[in-house]
Amino acid sequence: MSDRKEFRDLATPEAAREAIASLDLAPEPETVPLGEARGRVLAERIDAAIDVPGFDRASMDGYAVRAEDTFGADEVDPAELDLVGAVHAGAAPEVTVAPGSCAEISTGAVMPEGADAVVMVERTDELSATGEGNAEEGSDRIAVRTAVAPGDHVMSAGADIAAGARALGPGTRLTPREIGLLSALGVDEVPVEGKPRVGIVSTGDELVRPGEDLDPSRGEIYDVNSTTIAAGVEEAGGEPVLYPHAGDDYDEMERLLRRAADECDLVLSSGSTSASAVDVIYRVIEERGELLLHGVAVKPGKPMLVGRLDRGGSEAAAEGDGDGAAPRTDESAYIGLPGYPVSALTIFRTFVAPAIREAAGQPEPATATVEGRMAVGERYGEGRMRLMPVGLLDLTDDDLPLVYPVDKGSGATTSLVEADGVVAVDPDTEYLDRGETVSVQLFSPDVRPPSLLGVGEDDPALNRLLDRLENPRYLPVGSREGLRRLRDGVPDVAVVAGPTDREVETVDLGGWTREWGLVVPAGNPADVTGLGSVVDRDLRFVNRPTDSGLRRSLDDALDALADERETSRSALTESVAGYELTVRAFESPARKVIAGDADVGVGLRETAKRLDCGFVSLGEQSVVVRAAPDRTDRDAVAELAAALDGPADLLDGLAGYSRNSRNEP
Amino acid sequence: MSDRKEFRDLATPEAAREAIASLDLAPEPETVPLGEARGRVLAERIDAAIDVPGFDRASMDGYAVRAEDTFGADEVDPAELDLVGAVHAGAAPEVTVAPGSCAEISTGAVMPEGADAVVMVERTDELSATGEGNAEEGSDRIAVRTAVAPGDHVMSAGADIAAGARALGPGTRLTPREIGLLSALGVDEVPVEGKPRVGIVSTGDELVRPGEDLDPSRGEIYDVNSTTIAAGVEEAGGEPVLYPHAGDDYDEMERLLRRAADECDLVLSSGSTSASAVDVIYRVIEERGELLLHGVAVKPGKPMLVGRLDRGGSEAAAEGDGDGAAPRTDESAYIGLPGYPVSALTIFRTFVAPAIREAAGQPEPATATVEGRMAVGERYGEGRMRLMPVGLLDLTDDDLPLVYPVDKGSGATTSLVEADGVVAVDPDTEYLDRGETVSVQLFSPDVRPPSLLGVGEDDPALNRLLDRLENPRYLPVGSREGLRRLRDGVPDVAVVAGPTDREVETVDLGGWTREWGLVVPAGNPADVTGLGSVVDRDLRFVNRPTDSGLRRSLDDALDALADERETSRSALTESVAGYELTVRAFESPARKVIAGDADVGVGLRETAKRLDCGFVSLGEQSVVVRAAPDRTDRDAVAELAAALDGPADLLDGLAGYSRNSRNEP
Repeated sequence: MSDRKEFRDLATPEAAREAIASLDLAPEPETVPLGEARGRVLAERIDAAIDVPGFDRASMDGYAVRAEDTFGADEVDPAELDLVGAVHAGAAPEVTVAPGSCAEISTGAVMPEGADAVVMVERTDELSATGEGNAEEGSDRIAVRTAVAPGDHVMSAGADIAAGARALGPGTRLTPREIGLLSALGVDEVPVEGKPRVGIVSTGDELVRPGEDLDPSRGEIYDVNSTTIAAGVEEAGGEPVLYPHAGDDYDEMERLLRRAADECDLVLSSGSTSASAVDVIYRVIEERGELLLHGVAVKPGKPMLVGRLDRGGSEAAAEGDGDGAAPRTDESAYIGLPGYPVSALTIFRTFVAPAIREAAGQPEPATATVEGRMAVGERYGEGRMRLMPVGLLDLTDDDLPLVYPVDKGSGATTSLVEADGVVAVDPDTEYLDRGETVSVQLFSPDVRPPSLLGVGEDDPALNRLLDRLENPRYLPVGSREGLRRLRDGVPDVAVVAGPTDREVETVDLGGWTREWGLVVPAGNPADVTGLGSVVDRDLRFVNRPTDSGLRRSLDDALDALADERETSRSALTESVAGYELTVRAFESPARKVIAGDADVGVGLRETAKRLDCGFVSLGEQSVVVRAAPDRTDRDAVAELAAALDGPADLLDGLAGYSRNSRNEP
Repeated sequence: MSDRKEFRDLATPEAAREAIASLDLAPEPETVPLGEARGRVLAERIDAAIDVPGFDRASMDGYAVRAEDTFGADEVDPAELDLVGAVHAGAAPEVTVAPGSCAEISTGAVMPEGADAVVMVERTDELSATGEGNAEEGSDRIAVRTAVAPGDHVMSAGADIAAGARALGPGTRLTPREIGLLSALGVDEVPVEGKPRVGIVSTGDELVRPGEDLDPSRGEIYDVNSTTIAAGVEEAGGEPVLYPHAGDDYDEMERLLRRAADECDLVLSSGSTSASAVDVIYRVIEERGELLLHGVAVKPGKPMLVGRLDRGGSEAAAEGDGDGAAPRTDESAYIGLPGYPVSALTIFRTFVAPAIREAAGQPEPATATVEGRMAVGERYGEGRMRLMPVGLLDLTDDDLPLVYPVDKGSGATTSLVEADGVVAVDPDTEYLDRGETVSVQLFSPDVRPPSLLGVGEDDPALNRLLDRLENPRYLPVGSREGLRRLRDGVPDVAVVAGPTDREVETVDLGGWTREWGLVVPAGNPADVTGLGSVVDRDLRFVNRPTDSGLRRSLDDALDALADERETSRSALTESVAGYELTVRAFESPARKVIAGDADVGVGLRETAKRLDCGFVSLGEQSVVVRAAPDRTDRDAVAELAAALDGPADLLDGLAGYSRNSRNEP
């Protein structure tokens, strides 16, 4: 292990930002059709090349007149004019309005020669040829019951915007409204800032692309960072280029890094846990570029690399391969991200996305950062900046959202969706107080904090219930841990299965009853008849963790069996092989049984049915949704209660499930 | 005109929303590759199909041990274990850890059989084979200086997320983090809500697509609404389909409407000003669908139509044409928008975009609505809801942004970029007070209010200056009107050219001097020598409006000439043909001269040079940037002042321009 690279002399976050700012990621501007320009940023000023409108235009339906002919006209004494014809939008006028005459005109039509104003149709009457009232078809005299001034109801040529005038400035982000103005100017393609091409090179023997087959026995895992970072690059205004996975072929990895440098403005790799892969990256940068920085004093993200890679000499470049434009400079930027997904996305979000946006000319999104207040106190004191993953919960419109730390260890991919962003905690800050205001950098500007935060037992009926709510978040931490968290004041509700010792003041919103017991292989080959079989015989058992309501009911049943046999529970469990082997979710024991890793597991009748296993019932337990008393007024909690009380189909088809009346845990 | 459709019995805005809500725009869900899933919305719940991780995984670099072998070990009395091999990430373990032994293990590697915990490398020493200290290569004994418990530094299979557990709920919008979790689960394609196909049919004889040639003499204008609304559809999560422009061929228009109904979930047309086009739409809906609503009591947007179009029978359908999926229902929704661009976008934004988002499963964007306070009072009382276009200006971080009405008439396309959104003013509200809090619906969630609001004269050096600022907004209303608006307290700065009568307290930020005079055709064929030529000879003149600083300097010069001749200015101007003919921008008179519509125009030496015209100088005038005294502390104003004081190249190459020292207007 002595040849592994160690990071010493960690750079400050500011130094890392400066190193990244010193890199040149900006591509050449490009020209795109107007129809593809939404969200792009103008590379230069657009001046109007034409007058809009291009002609003096009627802005009302009515009659084009010479204003002086109407002077003095009113309801009592209208001016009478000869109707000499009509002008419609999209047609050249074929009439001239001489003194004493007028022409019918539609909104948007060209003002005919001679006319300098329009009288609204509502202020006119058609007269018969004899000059009398009562409109009829073919009338050739018009009574005008109002006076107009020259220019009335006429939009003169260039009055909207004139040729030569500044229309849009450089750096303008194109939304539908700017696209509207450009359309009015007849512009059908626009010069925009280029999208930085960002190559993503995936390193690490253990990574497999989603959709491919995985061999867990070899320690293979799906490659999370490539797709996550590609989506982040796209969101920041860059164009992600995913390079094929090099696997454990280091020559191929080196070739890919060089090709990515040739073809892209920025090359990203996310830290392999494999030391040899890191060595390849170091070697390529040392031989063919410059390492500006290795290691930053932030948690997570220590193993971050920043450097430059020279261009030229890769096979791709030699062959003229690659579909991008010719690179603008003779080097590409390189940033190495940490390997764990939350760390990689955090470092990307904090250091890399701003640089991509800057290069793309894109402004920082308005929703990138939100203020919140700490729901709990948090101690920290490692002397380096901590980018602390946090979840958000909006309690009221008037107050800042609650912020709570999410610390599942950076290896957990679920923290990607259980946290909403990170709080940058200063190296000098040892303690964040409950209630303190903090600034949360969202993982992406699209992140929406959940409407409801629930914690507790996992359960198939609960999954259905959650599906009926809009944007809930549920953390399946188990019944006991759920109640603990509810007491600490962060979540809205806890879902509790089975009996509980904890005294926590809650409001029961309702629930159901589920049948639990022992899940065995289909046909029950070991002829398991009850808990006695597990205790007395040499069967491999698989359990659920102590926080789980299923475990609590199992232990109660073991207590009862111990009483019956006049012994202790621990005396019984000592003889159960696998009693301490706990697995995470409600289906997990059954899956262990199916895989042949165990003979008996604790579980639900519903799971046994769904996965075609045998089942030996040990009883029923209630599952109750319990709300924090100060949250019952929230819309999302009311919505949850309504869904619980709602259509009876919540439990339809779930084996062993029945309705539970309210307040009967 | 008696056959034109009139809208009576206008529906309430609520009735319009209900009519639109009764339409079914939702397409079938579809399956997309994970790489294209960003921003889409899950159509169903995704449960984990595999355990993540799929194996018991080392979460530290170190040694895999049997925990009980380390019990009692500490710095003083380490446990010594035989090193039996190594396990790397991405490889199947080839060793078994028997009692008293250990295996080197990398972060992420599979725990070898027998081992149940990992000791961090930092808490171990390599020993020589003889059991002494000092690490060397090939050591086969490891000293463990700490005790570990079973499970320490091991992430057990399924601990992140277990097979069968709920991963993401239906309705989840996919951002990079959800894409990360789906990748971890090996999901490479996802079921998402479909994008509603929205057909956009462009009606109106006068409309020409951007990029094509325009004939203003026929009253042609570029089609603004098709591209604007297409961008808005895309932004709301729909898929816009632009149908070819039918021009004045009503049979073709009818065929297109029917084809669009066959191929799309929603058909939009934007109101033609041509009565016959409206008639075609009415006839198609009456014959082949149902009109739910015509006319809504909002301003703008009175001429809004809501209805349904039956499917089937179009040539396209008969031929199996169209690239979309087979329509889900036997009818398509239809909404007719007003014709003026601001009206069309406002009605789209208020009534149609929410329906498209709903059908696409997309949530209302967080930034769609912002609060602000009225910068001026605004009176209104037409008894119907007004969607008042407004601009926004963020003065401080602590206060709500200023909101000011933008009322250029709905025919102006520039109000698209001069306004940021609309305030819905209730029919009962006759007056909005200055300082009153209002809610602004942004034209699109991407809209960013300007950093700086300037008003006043238009000028080529000013255009350059604006290019150097980030996101300014400048309204070229002329010097006089600019000062008036500055006094009323909305803009930050006014740019004033030439002398002024207005007494407005301002802070001068600096400026320049520009040479002005008469622009004539190249070579000065009429041999214009000065203002006298214009007054005395039969030349066609073209002027600028009275708010313009150029006009003010011209009038001062005419006053001087009148004094010289002992007459009045009006006596002189009466003999100038075109003195009252005013055009909008600083280049406009020159362009009239070039077009042959005038012999002489008022203008700048710089314009004459740029457009290759002749020029007769009449003097110089100052252009001064004047800030409102209470805005000088704003960052954007300081940035503007710095840009004025900054690099001397602001005026480089501008003919007749020179630096103006500060405070010398």
